[in-house]
Amino acid sequence: MPEAGSLRVALLGCGVVGTQVARLLTEHHDELAARVGATLEIVGIAVRNPDAPREQVTGTPLEPLLTADAEGLVARADVVVEVMGGIEPARTLLLSAIAHGASVVTANKALLAQDGPTLYAAADAAGVDLYFEAAVAGAIPIVRPVRESLAGDQVRRVLGIVNGTTNYVLDRMATEGLDLDVAVKEAQSLGYAEADPTADVEGFDAAAKAAILASLAFHTRVSLDDVAREGITSVTADDVASAASTGHVVKLLAIAERNRAADGTDGIQVRVHPALVPVTHPLAGVRGAYNAVFVEAESAGELMFYGRGAGGGPTASAVLGDVVSVARHRVLGGRGPVESWYADLPVLPATESRTRFQVRLEVVDRPGVLAQVAAVLAGHDVSIEAVRQTAGHAAADGHEVAALLLSTHAAPERALAATVEALEGLDVVREIVSVLRVEGS
Amino acid sequence: MPEAGSLRVALLGCGVVGTQVARLLTEHHDELAARVGATLEIVGIAVRNPDAPREQVTGTPLEPLLTADAEGLVARADVVVEVMGGIEPARTLLLSAIAHGASVVTANKALLAQDGPTLYAAADAAGVDLYFEAAVAGAIPIVRPVRESLAGDQVRRVLGIVNGTTNYVLDRMATEGLDLDVAVKEAQSLGYAEADPTADVEGFDAAAKAAILASLAFHTRVSLDDVAREGITSVTADDVASAASTGHVVKLLAIAERNRAADGTDGIQVRVHPALVPVTHPLAGVRGAYNAVFVEAESAGELMFYGRGAGGGPTASAVLGDVVSVARHRVLGGRGPVESWYADLPVLPATESRTRFQVRLEVVDRPGVLAQVAAVLAGHDVSIEAVRQTAGHAAADGHEVAALLLSTHAAPERALAATVEALEGLDVVREIVSVLRVEGS
Repeated sequence: MPEAGSLRVALLGCGVVGTQVARLLTEHHDELAARVGATLEIVGIAVRNPDAPREQVTGTPLEPLLTADAEGLVARADVVVEVMGGIEPARTLLLSAIAHGASVVTANKALLAQDGPTLYAAADAAGVDLYFEAAVAGAIPIVRPVRESLAGDQVRRVLGIVNGTTNYVLDRMATEGLDLDVAVKEAQSLGYAEADPTADVEGFDAAAKAAILASLAFHTRVSLDDVAREGITSVTADDVASAASTGHVVKLLAIAERNRAADGTDGIQVRVHPALVPVTHPLAGVRGAYNAVFVEAESAGELMFYGRGAGGGPTASAVLGDVVSVARHRVLGGRGPVESWYADLPVLPATESRTRFQVRLEVVDRPGVLAQVAAVLAGHDVSIEAVRQTAGHAAADGHEVAALLLSTHAAPERALAATVEALEGLDVVREIVSVLRVEGS
Repeated sequence: MPEAGSLRVALLGCGVVGTQVARLLTEHHDELAARVGATLEIVGIAVRNPDAPREQVTGTPLEPLLTADAEGLVARADVVVEVMGGIEPARTLLLSAIAHGASVVTANKALLAQDGPTLYAAADAAGVDLYFEAAVAGAIPIVRPVRESLAGDQVRRVLGIVNGTTNYVLDRMATEGLDLDVAVKEAQSLGYAEADPTADVEGFDAAAKAAILASLAFHTRVSLDDVAREGITSVTADDVASAASTGHVVKLLAIAERNRAADGTDGIQVRVHPALVPVTHPLAGVRGAYNAVFVEAESAGELMFYGRGAGGGPTASAVLGDVVSVARHRVLGGRGPVESWYADLPVLPATESRTRFQVRLEVVDRPGVLAQVAAVLAGHDVSIEAVRQTAGHAAADGHEVAALLLSTHAAPERALAATVEALEGLDVVREIVSVLRVEGS
């Protein structure tokens, strides 16, 4: 047992985030004690190889705390902080910590998106806290506001820029006119993107966060498999320039919304895809590698939370806020919010969503083309909001062609898909250049 | 005593916010019970005149709950929600509720700014919760993030747009070129401004919120008297246009920052004044009657919280989030964060602040004027960042005059004041048109 007035903290992982967590626990030792009502003592840091060379980031060397025996460590801690990432052994260690009666704090979005309900249920059964502010949007307090501040309200929709890498890439495409691959290389050279950028640019990272946000916002079990996902790899410099010409920016959005299916089913939808956002929308101003989560709630109206979504310091700040909360519960009693899926809404298929679209087409430049195109949309009950046609020019094959930009009113996803298929079948349509959803208007 | 599984909620006040709180408690009765672990039953609503006619906003009429006996009501409640506003009788009733062992939730910024420490100490001594998310920036979760999410971090600076009325007025001046009085009249006709707009336009409302934010962010007792305050009444359409010409917008900011005085004293500064904000800063995009609070913290970096700062629904949403938290503590044990002033930093006088300034002057249009002006700044150790001079024109009195716009690097407030005084004494200076601080760059 710890001495009176002291809590034993175990760290799992000592990478970029773990070392910053250790630094804050050490440097702010006295101030944290004042906030918690007990001192927080690091009793060990579990790493794969305790003998590997490490950068020293705190006044106190971490080496004496390092151990390869993670199982042994979690058995003798009051608070376990998991910042190792990945599914295993993180999952087993967290379940073991919970079984030993420790409170746990994790930054592991992949694990929560895949197996959150198992962890929540285990924590609930053991009567311990499971906190995970750092798992969504890094330093931005979003989990706590959604779980606690909005506990008396009803969330209608969450729109998030939750992946800093893709936001940086799209921002550079917009401001510098860069091509996607050039912007990705730039992000890699700055350390914003991994050598293999797949998890970011294909939207897997954003989808994991979307699943967690949807679970919290709608009190419904949502896993990664429920998220319709489309990355930014098909977004071109032309798409971004065309968006700007109509007063939009392209953002990769994680969207979770309450929706009603065509058959009347009340449910939710969770999806990640590039979208056009009006420049006047608060999300449009989120630049560089920043993240932001925009929430629409019944009574609160529109809220936005903005900040750094990644990085050692920002993530450690969110972890420490959670550590203080769970530690206070151990000192004063009480528990944080418990995830329960009492709403248990069905997750509707993506085909049930209704959005506005912008469709760019290359068409043969001759009279009557617009009438044919418009007839196809009308035939599928898709209402046109605006049409822009550029002056014709000669294509490589000598034909006179024109670019057509169609903006629609809100239409069902399935109607739009059928429309695009029908447009592809028209003789006068040479190419469907792009189809992008419009959100936040 | 309440029946098992039920908590008695007393409402003090039944105005715009009170009726919305009653509506949410009634309409979301079952969902709130699921989140709290007990039902929340309104046992009474204290109003001055229970017989006054009222609009019905809930399915259940509120009349049977109304009472003029507020003292009697707080004595039989588990949770007391104060949304009546004003200092008395709100203060006496909250202290009475605390003395009776009730947990309290208040939206009363004036009371907290004037007498918060008395209330916090009473709640701490009684071992009950005192929550007040709605007192700062309405629906925006800012109190909880600062008190809890950033509990392991160090706040360096808070910049807030915390008064929706003045933000609406300044926004209309910027976008429509309106004069201040026209924009204020428009805000009044839309219900954003009171018939007597003094509390808003003179910055009193923002100063109360600045005092509360500074207390939370720096763990230091800060009262309204500690806040240096300047409203927007001297801001002209010309100031706003001139700001735009240098890539800035004018915002009324509530600022609380960690600072070091000239004599080395480590302290904080709290002030409210109009300021130029670069258009690229996230606060610049906060339009209309919206509020936002921008926080700079050591580890988290830059964060921003955005949303509606006023209105019945938004404020009620924040109140309900607090009600759920304090009610959960009554069911499960535990307590929320306790305000303690352990940091106890001195509040430094406004003359100790260092900021960048923009000074607009009307000068006589002849060679050598700029050299004289520049010499005055150099003599006071104020470094010039940029100068813009418009082409000369004939003033009403026939003299050729020119407008000069000086942008300085960061300089001490006292040096700037001395500089302005010296400039006023120059023969070639006809008028100091405006002096505005630049923040957020």
